[in-house]
Amino acid sequence: MGYDLDILISGGTVLTMSDGMNIVENCAIGISEGTIHFVETEEYLKTIDWQAKESIDATGSLILPGLVNTHTHLPMVCFRGLADDLPLMDWLNNYIFPAEARFVNREMVYYGSMLAIAEMLLSGTTTFCDGYFYESSVARAAIDAGIRSVSCQGFIDFPTTENPDPTNNILIGEAFADKWTGVSPLITPAFFCHAPYTCSPETLATIKDLARRRGFLYLTHLAETQEEITTIVDRFGKTPVRHLYDLGILDDRTVAVHCNWLDDEEIQILADCGTSVSHNPESSMKLAAGVAPIPKMLDAGVTVGLGTDGCASNNDLDLFTEMDTAAKIHKVTSMDPTVMDAQTVLRIATIDGAKVLGLHDRIGSVEVGKRADLVIVDMQKPHLTPCYNYYSHLVYAASGHDVSGVIIDGKIVVRDRILTTIDVDGVMERVREIAENIRKEHLT
Amino acid sequence: MGYDLDILISGGTVLTMSDGMNIVENCAIGISEGTIHFVETEEYLKTIDWQAKESIDATGSLILPGLVNTHTHLPMVCFRGLADDLPLMDWLNNYIFPAEARFVNREMVYYGSMLAIAEMLLSGTTTFCDGYFYESSVARAAIDAGIRSVSCQGFIDFPTTENPDPTNNILIGEAFADKWTGVSPLITPAFFCHAPYTCSPETLATIKDLARRRGFLYLTHLAETQEEITTIVDRFGKTPVRHLYDLGILDDRTVAVHCNWLDDEEIQILADCGTSVSHNPESSMKLAAGVAPIPKMLDAGVTVGLGTDGCASNNDLDLFTEMDTAAKIHKVTSMDPTVMDAQTVLRIATIDGAKVLGLHDRIGSVEVGKRADLVIVDMQKPHLTPCYNYYSHLVYAASGHDVSGVIIDGKIVVRDRILTTIDVDGVMERVREIAENIRKEHLT
Repeated sequence: MGYDLDILISGGTVLTMSDGMNIVENCAIGISEGTIHFVETEEYLKTIDWQAKESIDATGSLILPGLVNTHTHLPMVCFRGLADDLPLMDWLNNYIFPAEARFVNREMVYYGSMLAIAEMLLSGTTTFCDGYFYESSVARAAIDAGIRSVSCQGFIDFPTTENPDPTNNILIGEAFADKWTGVSPLITPAFFCHAPYTCSPETLATIKDLARRRGFLYLTHLAETQEEITTIVDRFGKTPVRHLYDLGILDDRTVAVHCNWLDDEEIQILADCGTSVSHNPESSMKLAAGVAPIPKMLDAGVTVGLGTDGCASNNDLDLFTEMDTAAKIHKVTSMDPTVMDAQTVLRIATIDGAKVLGLHDRIGSVEVGKRADLVIVDMQKPHLTPCYNYYSHLVYAASGHDVSGVIIDGKIVVRDRILTTIDVDGVMERVREIAENIRKEHLT
Repeated sequence: MGYDLDILISGGTVLTMSDGMNIVENCAIGISEGTIHFVETEEYLKTIDWQAKESIDATGSLILPGLVNTHTHLPMVCFRGLADDLPLMDWLNNYIFPAEARFVNREMVYYGSMLAIAEMLLSGTTTFCDGYFYESSVARAAIDAGIRSVSCQGFIDFPTTENPDPTNNILIGEAFADKWTGVSPLITPAFFCHAPYTCSPETLATIKDLARRRGFLYLTHLAETQEEITTIVDRFGKTPVRHLYDLGILDDRTVAVHCNWLDDEEIQILADCGTSVSHNPESSMKLAAGVAPIPKMLDAGVTVGLGTDGCASNNDLDLFTEMDTAAKIHKVTSMDPTVMDAQTVLRIATIDGAKVLGLHDRIGSVEVGKRADLVIVDMQKPHLTPCYNYYSHLVYAASGHDVSGVIIDGKIVVRDRILTTIDVDGVMERVREIAENIRKEHLT
């Protein structure tokens, strides 16, 4: 048997995150044309004919599937640290919404996204699911940087700089779908209705119909705050989850983001409908929005992925530290240290995140036939020594800074912590220029 | 005026953490004989005669006082990740206590401490307060590595490998005090009674008397778990705080560690007594021990410092990510995003931590006359771009990996992320050897 490989990774230990959670020590991973062809021990190399254009020695490192960030608003890196420690409505109405109305445009979205992608690649994220204005510019940045993206056209019932007339929503959705369907293996187009309190039942249902016709994923913020619950109950006489359920929106191609305020029956509704959840613990802690009942959701069989949310409410995109927080917040909230164990949390950040986004046939684990989205973590560091348990270290001790290499769709995008696809100094400079204008208007 | 400096730091921005929270842009900091002689702008250099043995260009960086870790058990790095996601008593009785009984000795304590110090220095901690067995070996490692330490002789009412006969406690305390008083400007000896449930009233009070006679700080774990409250109420008819108060132990030279379960009256008792608190949010979250009512303590005037606790329950020693968690956990617990703002949290991790340890006359802020314990943070990174607010970035976006340089007592101990005082590869190798024996016994 012969292999003409693009990349051979040898040495190191693979956490495959397969159903059997197989671990392969002294590994050999063969990649060609973006696909994983074998995941074996180094001994295997003696039994086959092979050549590789590039070899990576991963001795002393862990290799894992790239992390999946199921909820971002990438361009919001431009507002990182602009306004913190504020009540949610003050933050939104007096800082974020005015800044967005004034400064969001295609250029800001492209360069903000590129900066965010640089940060994500350097911290081991290989797939993100984003919703923002001018989402085509987010997708363009993703293609240019070589990262995998579920890019969501957003919908909301008030005029925006991108779409001054919300009655055009359906046309905009159709145009976005036409534009991005089948363009790149890296881009999966999808739709994002902002929330039940900013979208009418008609908008929510019409866009869901369009998503169904196009075979698209459908996302919405849901049950993020207690205020939202009150608002929707006042308006429709039922909670947000029941409101969406009655509209026929909850199915296995809908992702509900946040879900901090669910009762047991609502959890069961999500489970019965196959609706998955994007969990963003740090954002919801920082905004004092609430703590989602994730352990109960997992017990009920709801598929949960991890997300960072936008950088104005986190304020970083590091999924390693997000994993750490996800594990710890649920232990103390439920007063049970056994919930959200390290293996479960790493599954949520990899294969389960891929399931949330409907991409688990292609990514989320290191297995033969899947696309080669891999992260290499350097374990030869004081804070990762000694090592008894790989999962524990990744969740409780590592951070994105320990990532040494990243491969997406079979291309090396981070090598020895250097980005190969992004002029990071140039991008930082562009974003600083954008920020200088924001600073002048908002902080002086 | 002339200055013969050991180190001149120029460029960059100083967050002084002084009472006025002064910020100096384009700074010039002059250091000689371990002391800060000036904190000025670069213009100042033109007005004086000066020479410096070493110059550090900190352009594009922040300079802040070294972080203060008010609670550690350093040698527990040897148990990092040995046992996670377990009920507290299972974790303690079946993993930690047996491993300690079998493997704790002077060599393990020295090399474990050295590894922990390497991690702390690389993440910007310049002072720690530690309690463990064989604490003299911790202090020895601190001196060898050049880090500042409050090293606490521990006391507990059952036999340990270090002290098979607890009736010797007072002698051991005297000997420790004799050994370490005045030995090194880096070492402040102190006493640590483990907890009210493991130390009799006699032990607690006798050691406090000894601490008073020696002018030593006195620490104890206090009100960590609900079980502890129940135990002490059952045993003494009152809560742990009231128990210590009635024993006359609570004063302004006592530090209470954890304090997760305090009622409002107990908070007022601590405030009235001047007793300060070491807050370890990540450890208490991971162990599902509880969330300390820190915002209420701050409102009552209690001085609070930050700590990581030992690495078996965290599992790292990075005070930057601990700051992030400290801010977020209290926002969501109190459902108020305005509590624990970034400035407050950075104060807790610097000057307030120094106050907790009684060292604020020497460290905790960048001010003339204080010892030169400084951290340089490289801000030219994607995840720290753009920057509207320094405090926000340090608490919500930075991590210990962004530290580029560390100076302690006027000596450079980290330069361009390289440790100057520790053979880190050699230390990691020694700890791996120690861990191999632990692994054989506990995980096979």
